[in-house]
Amino acid sequence: MLDVIAPLVVPNTTKIVLVSLDGLGGLPRPETGRSELETASLPNLSQLAADAACGLIRHVAPGITPGSGPGHLGLFGYDPLQYQVGRGVLEALGIEFDLRAGDVAARGNFCTVDAAGKIIDRRAGRLATEINLKLTERLRRIKLPGVEVFVESVKEYRFVLVLRARARGGARLAAGLSETDQLPKLPRFPEVFGLRSAAIAAYPMYRGLAKLVGMEVLKTGTTFDDELATLREHWDTHDFFFVHYKDTDKAGEDGDFDAKVRALERLDRAIPEIRALKPDVLIVSGDHATPSVLAGHGWQPVPVLVWSRYCGADGVTAFTERACGAGSLGVMPSQHLMPLVMANALRLTKFGA
Amino acid sequence: MLDVIAPLVVPNTTKIVLVSLDGLGGLPRPETGRSELETASLPNLSQLAADAACGLIRHVAPGITPGSGPGHLGLFGYDPLQYQVGRGVLEALGIEFDLRAGDVAARGNFCTVDAAGKIIDRRAGRLATEINLKLTERLRRIKLPGVEVFVESVKEYRFVLVLRARARGGARLAAGLSETDQLPKLPRFPEVFGLRSAAIAAYPMYRGLAKLVGMEVLKTGTTFDDELATLREHWDTHDFFFVHYKDTDKAGEDGDFDAKVRALERLDRAIPEIRALKPDVLIVSGDHATPSVLAGHGWQPVPVLVWSRYCGADGVTAFTERACGAGSLGVMPSQHLMPLVMANALRLTKFGA
Repeated sequence: MLDVIAPLVVPNTTKIVLVSLDGLGGLPRPETGRSELETASLPNLSQLAADAACGLIRHVAPGITPGSGPGHLGLFGYDPLQYQVGRGVLEALGIEFDLRAGDVAARGNFCTVDAAGKIIDRRAGRLATEINLKLTERLRRIKLPGVEVFVESVKEYRFVLVLRARARGGARLAAGLSETDQLPKLPRFPEVFGLRSAAIAAYPMYRGLAKLVGMEVLKTGTTFDDELATLREHWDTHDFFFVHYKDTDKAGEDGDFDAKVRALERLDRAIPEIRALKPDVLIVSGDHATPSVLAGHGWQPVPVLVWSRYCGADGVTAFTERACGAGSLGVMPSQHLMPLVMANALRLTKFGA
Repeated sequence: MLDVIAPLVVPNTTKIVLVSLDGLGGLPRPETGRSELETASLPNLSQLAADAACGLIRHVAPGITPGSGPGHLGLFGYDPLQYQVGRGVLEALGIEFDLRAGDVAARGNFCTVDAAGKIIDRRAGRLATEINLKLTERLRRIKLPGVEVFVESVKEYRFVLVLRARARGGARLAAGLSETDQLPKLPRFPEVFGLRSAAIAAYPMYRGLAKLVGMEVLKTGTTFDDELATLREHWDTHDFFFVHYKDTDKAGEDGDFDAKVRALERLDRAIPEIRALKPDVLIVSGDHATPSVLAGHGWQPVPVLVWSRYCGADGVTAFTERACGAGSLGVMPSQHLMPLVMANALRLTKFGA
């Protein structure tokens, strides 16, 4: 689709805000039969849904639970099956390691072995981060010919190994490690869509994903209020803003239904602040479901609303899984969202004469 | 899909009418929140929608605004991304130039150049058609070895250039011109679907598009009443009738909401005449949206209804964007419509044993 879209892009001055609620989608709590979105009081999102075109997006394929990488790539318009970003790269992005083209990154666990060298605990008893720091320092001393070796702590038992060919030799590393990966060559989002693109995310992993597709990562604080302040500050200098909200996912991962409801309600209260900026296109969606009853990512398609002057509001008046399922956008692959957004921003010319 | 369908086609005597309302889909007028279809009084289309299976069709992909070429190819069952018809071919079809396989067609503008030869007006001050006629006559005198040159006036500043390899030399022209094209090789509609197929369209462009896929273009007049008379006259000699209605698109392109409402109401009054012929399958849809508020083609999916004895009426009782969005056909790619139509006409056998 990117090949179809890129030649259709036309310049405009319209502003686009994509609010991504991490782990947005949920499932009914058995006691009430209502999901987190159906339980929360969300007056602003309901009003926005009533004014918007609604639907569900599926990030990879039916039944496939997306990781954060494919979840976000889909939102950004990339087919997650075509552009695969491995664990090593994601882990490196998560600690804001300055990954470069050609680097090979692997995710590592410290483990416990017995006297015979057999692995008896893949997480080394979830060792303390301080021990991890000492271990990575020791590993860093290993020298390999022609290759720079980086061993970086993440936390507890987790570390990242990055191998970089030394510039002088000009040698290139092959991505031949299993379950690992070279920094993938992704078409650059700002060039494909002709948008001065900014990412606002308090969490490093999401900043890293945005950087991976070439967005400018704006410096922000640690809270969603900080993110909103950053959005306001940079309103005039960019066309597209990816704004990331983490709390929904955290609560879902913890299996804490009520906390997820509260996280949704907090986000709802921020919607008027975003609308006050008068974006031409406002999208609310997420990178994957994190149903509290699963206490982890889910495969369920995720609600999406697209508001613009030209969105064609449908009959949906609530921002929930079930209501959006009856919306005019249907159930669509997430990588089709960006073309729709671009159309609503009057930034695409027609296809064919 | 055509490769899947063709071997499944079985003979039958059923009659199919596809009424294409050009630029059918619309958007709510901000003052009322109702679209053109929602504003118009359409008793006959509402009744038909109540008896039919309804949905929305998307001609290219979400967010992509189709030109008339891809819009119609989709309706005829062709994937518009696979079969691309360029501007030159469409312009040639629009003036009913007898384009042949192997011809290369380019769309041209007369322009104004300054003393240094630099283009200073790409439309030559929108020169009068009479001057255009004199200029094309001069250009026609240019001789090229091995190639027949056709230079045909369209109107004002616009002309078509067609190059045809002389049969004797047997030379073939390559489609190497940028932004232009060779007459594309399209599977022939009558053979793929096993239908004696007729196109009834008052406007040349749509006759040309039907001819491009091998339909027989029936001689008709300049009004929709003429088209209906042509439909009645040829009822016994054909199986499939593509009937084109232009007024909806014209009003939409003019940004004239009320005129589009009236155009829809005029079409509605013709529905009983079409039903009186007792087609076995009756489809009402369009080639793309032309929302009056956009005053141009739009990317929005377009309402569709498929009526037959076997269509399985759903809960939809109004032929509008929102009502059809909740129909049993869902939001489907336009090229899936023809297989569905063929099934409803009992003209497809089952796939696999």
